[in-house]
Amino acid sequence: MNKMKKYYYGICFLISVAINILFSTYLYVGDGRWGENNQEISCRSSLTWSEKAASEAEAVAAISCSGHGRAFLDGSISYGQPVCECYGCYGGTDCSELSPGCAADANSGDPIYLEPFWMQNAADTTVVISGWHRMSYEYDDDPMMSTELDKYIRKLHSIAGNAITQDRYIVFGVGSSQLLSAAVYALSSEISSSPSNVLASIPFYHLYKDQTRFFNSENFLFRGDTSSWKSNNSTDNMDVIEFVTSPTNPGGELKKAVLGGKTIYDHAYFWPQFTPIPGPSDHDLMIFSLSKLTGHAGTRFGWAIIKDKDVYEKVLNYIYLANAGISKDTQLRVLKVLKVAIKEDGKPFFEFAYNKMKDRWDRLAFVFSNSTRFSIQQRHPLHCNFFHESRLPSPAYAWVRCERDEDEDCRVVLEAGRIIGQSGSTFSAKDRYARLSLIKSQDDFELLLQRLTELVSFENGNMETM
Amino acid sequence: MNKMKKYYYGICFLISVAINILFSTYLYVGDGRWGENNQEISCRSSLTWSEKAASEAEAVAAISCSGHGRAFLDGSISYGQPVCECYGCYGGTDCSELSPGCAADANSGDPIYLEPFWMQNAADTTVVISGWHRMSYEYDDDPMMSTELDKYIRKLHSIAGNAITQDRYIVFGVGSSQLLSAAVYALSSEISSSPSNVLASIPFYHLYKDQTRFFNSENFLFRGDTSSWKSNNSTDNMDVIEFVTSPTNPGGELKKAVLGGKTIYDHAYFWPQFTPIPGPSDHDLMIFSLSKLTGHAGTRFGWAIIKDKDVYEKVLNYIYLANAGISKDTQLRVLKVLKVAIKEDGKPFFEFAYNKMKDRWDRLAFVFSNSTRFSIQQRHPLHCNFFHESRLPSPAYAWVRCERDEDEDCRVVLEAGRIIGQSGSTFSAKDRYARLSLIKSQDDFELLLQRLTELVSFENGNMETM
Repeated sequence: MNKMKKYYYGICFLISVAINILFSTYLYVGDGRWGENNQEISCRSSLTWSEKAASEAEAVAAISCSGHGRAFLDGSISYGQPVCECYGCYGGTDCSELSPGCAADANSGDPIYLEPFWMQNAADTTVVISGWHRMSYEYDDDPMMSTELDKYIRKLHSIAGNAITQDRYIVFGVGSSQLLSAAVYALSSEISSSPSNVLASIPFYHLYKDQTRFFNSENFLFRGDTSSWKSNNSTDNMDVIEFVTSPTNPGGELKKAVLGGKTIYDHAYFWPQFTPIPGPSDHDLMIFSLSKLTGHAGTRFGWAIIKDKDVYEKVLNYIYLANAGISKDTQLRVLKVLKVAIKEDGKPFFEFAYNKMKDRWDRLAFVFSNSTRFSIQQRHPLHCNFFHESRLPSPAYAWVRCERDEDEDCRVVLEAGRIIGQSGSTFSAKDRYARLSLIKSQDDFELLLQRLTELVSFENGNMETM
Repeated sequence: MNKMKKYYYGICFLISVAINILFSTYLYVGDGRWGENNQEISCRSSLTWSEKAASEAEAVAAISCSGHGRAFLDGSISYGQPVCECYGCYGGTDCSELSPGCAADANSGDPIYLEPFWMQNAADTTVVISGWHRMSYEYDDDPMMSTELDKYIRKLHSIAGNAITQDRYIVFGVGSSQLLSAAVYALSSEISSSPSNVLASIPFYHLYKDQTRFFNSENFLFRGDTSSWKSNNSTDNMDVIEFVTSPTNPGGELKKAVLGGKTIYDHAYFWPQFTPIPGPSDHDLMIFSLSKLTGHAGTRFGWAIIKDKDVYEKVLNYIYLANAGISKDTQLRVLKVLKVAIKEDGKPFFEFAYNKMKDRWDRLAFVFSNSTRFSIQQRHPLHCNFFHESRLPSPAYAWVRCERDEDEDCRVVLEAGRIIGQSGSTFSAKDRYARLSLIKSQDDFELLLQRLTELVSFENGNMETM
């Protein structure tokens, strides 16, 4: 019996020790380091009401679109989740199917080129908006605009060194698009019988003309090109409002006013990634756009920097009457994005953006260097105050000229080469020119370059074709 | 020796069993159910890039403003965190200091009345926007507008039963404010020598006049009140565009057009919380606003429901030329909010909103019932299709009339009683009237009621004072 007892206690002891070994293993190895399989330890995140939305956002971001597209929270739903929205010529449910022979769409200035930067900075640029965020029409200290955002915009310009903001007023708009029109209204004549003459230099962004004509106010009239105007009119005592795009769209050159009247400087592209910054711009009315700076075109945000108080109040009045200010959700998002853009004096952001554009131009210029049929704009080095050295511009667009006599409609010529560009006449220039966008997604750019390479090689290989 | 051995093994066995008990207790009780004190189990939230922003948002939401204010992510920073922005007459760093004698500000239609609902539904209405959310100008399947949001707006109208959307086009705008102007442009004459006549019925929302005059197009002219126009002009063959506000602002009555020409129906208040819904509205051009429906005025979102394709294209063109569409961040936020508003056939939301308004009107009506010096608009019961019973309207505003002969300027009379309202002339009506907003925060309403009660009691207690 004693032997049985000893045997029994021995077994219990061994079992007890075995259980302890199991428990130890479970606790010190199985705390999650085994990965997702180990679900037994319940884990309470410290988040409460925001966790559901955060999980939802991460789940959607994790939807694989083969690296050639993106799924968004508000995309169309298919099989219970938002669909992949594909870039370039990719398609299929996961954007993995490349459509052979598909045209490279380089028509729109859709600025997806910076998407990788924001994905790399995901944690800092995410914004969580509560259901009760800023329901009021007004801020506590301003009827329409965020004081914090105003502050960061001024910091941004100080860091980029591209505009004077001290003692200047700032007004936000729904994209710089809205501010172009607000500026025209603010600067225009108050005498209907003597409307202001609105002009721009060819090639110019079509919106100046289309918008001005559309609003069709008694206070202003779109007159067209500055050169034609200058040769037909003495500019003394003439009420002119001149749009000055600097750098130009599409060419990318820095410009000054030519008429000596009132000016609206459209500085949408006046950032280090597109052009050397010789110094801070200091004009009476300057308009900037978030779209081209950070790539957030969908957010619809622009701002005007204004010297004169009376003009400022008129621009503000436009924004108030047109739509009672811009979305406060948008203003919060922009604040988040700009805080990241200006980190470490803007170096990581502007270096990323510049390197992206430089790389694209290096490769593009190489392709065109092999062509006599097509040419692109000349670029001249300038000292850049931001990067502290002389650099070539890297404009957002290639302004392509078809050099052969018979190639009068360059857009059509490119289209035959499966490249979609914007015709010169869209910019009130000759159709011998066409604009190609260089700021779309990497997939779009790669396809553009491929098609251009094919086109140029056709040219060199076989002068008869196309 | 054997005895020592037995003793030794006995002790080991007991120790082993004790350890078993400890481990068991630790595992099956200490898995977090002890609460926050139990920190030993390392806890990895499954969130990654969104966690920082989510924590930040929750931390700001948790800032105590004594229940009399709100701190926001983009508020001014003081001592390292956003300041409290206080309601009504509260002030101080935590909004706990009530300023005695401070005036009740009932001027603005700032719709904070629904804030508690959104706070109660925090988890469902939070939206997490990644740094790369919809950077493009366009949606995959539409140049400017979210297809999902369009779908939910149609569901909303179907549930509320307040508008026909089938076979109708929808256009989004930066608040209904923007769509009012877009509609005027879309409906107006294309012959400058014969501009359209834009009219509205007194008392009308000032923006119709201010906006129309400001844009000063050659295509339209603001002519004023419909009644005056009707008595001076035959409406046959006259190019008229009539703003029909239904329910009216400020009175809250349902209205129809009076001129028989083109109409723009401003249905900003045509929701069950403000008025009985007799049936779905079916006019050619109807404009709705998120601001008054859900209270999200700061978001700046409205939509137009349009019958005619040509008119639709013109309104779309306005939005495109004015600002290339509205913010995609805004559209995502609105989608989230509307998904919650229509849950359970809209019952929780509309019941909450209606009960809030009804409670305010019951209390307000009681105060005014004791007054002969002031009167407010009469309300008449109507059958409501949404609530399936006859109900009194509960308008967003009280339209106060000063009854005493000498009280010609009602706004001034109320101001002396420390109540800030909007003068009748702001609505092109007589200054014998003043508008009081009933849709602000609960703190604002309580103070308004208190001041009104004081004012009325003065009237009854002492006819000489004030």
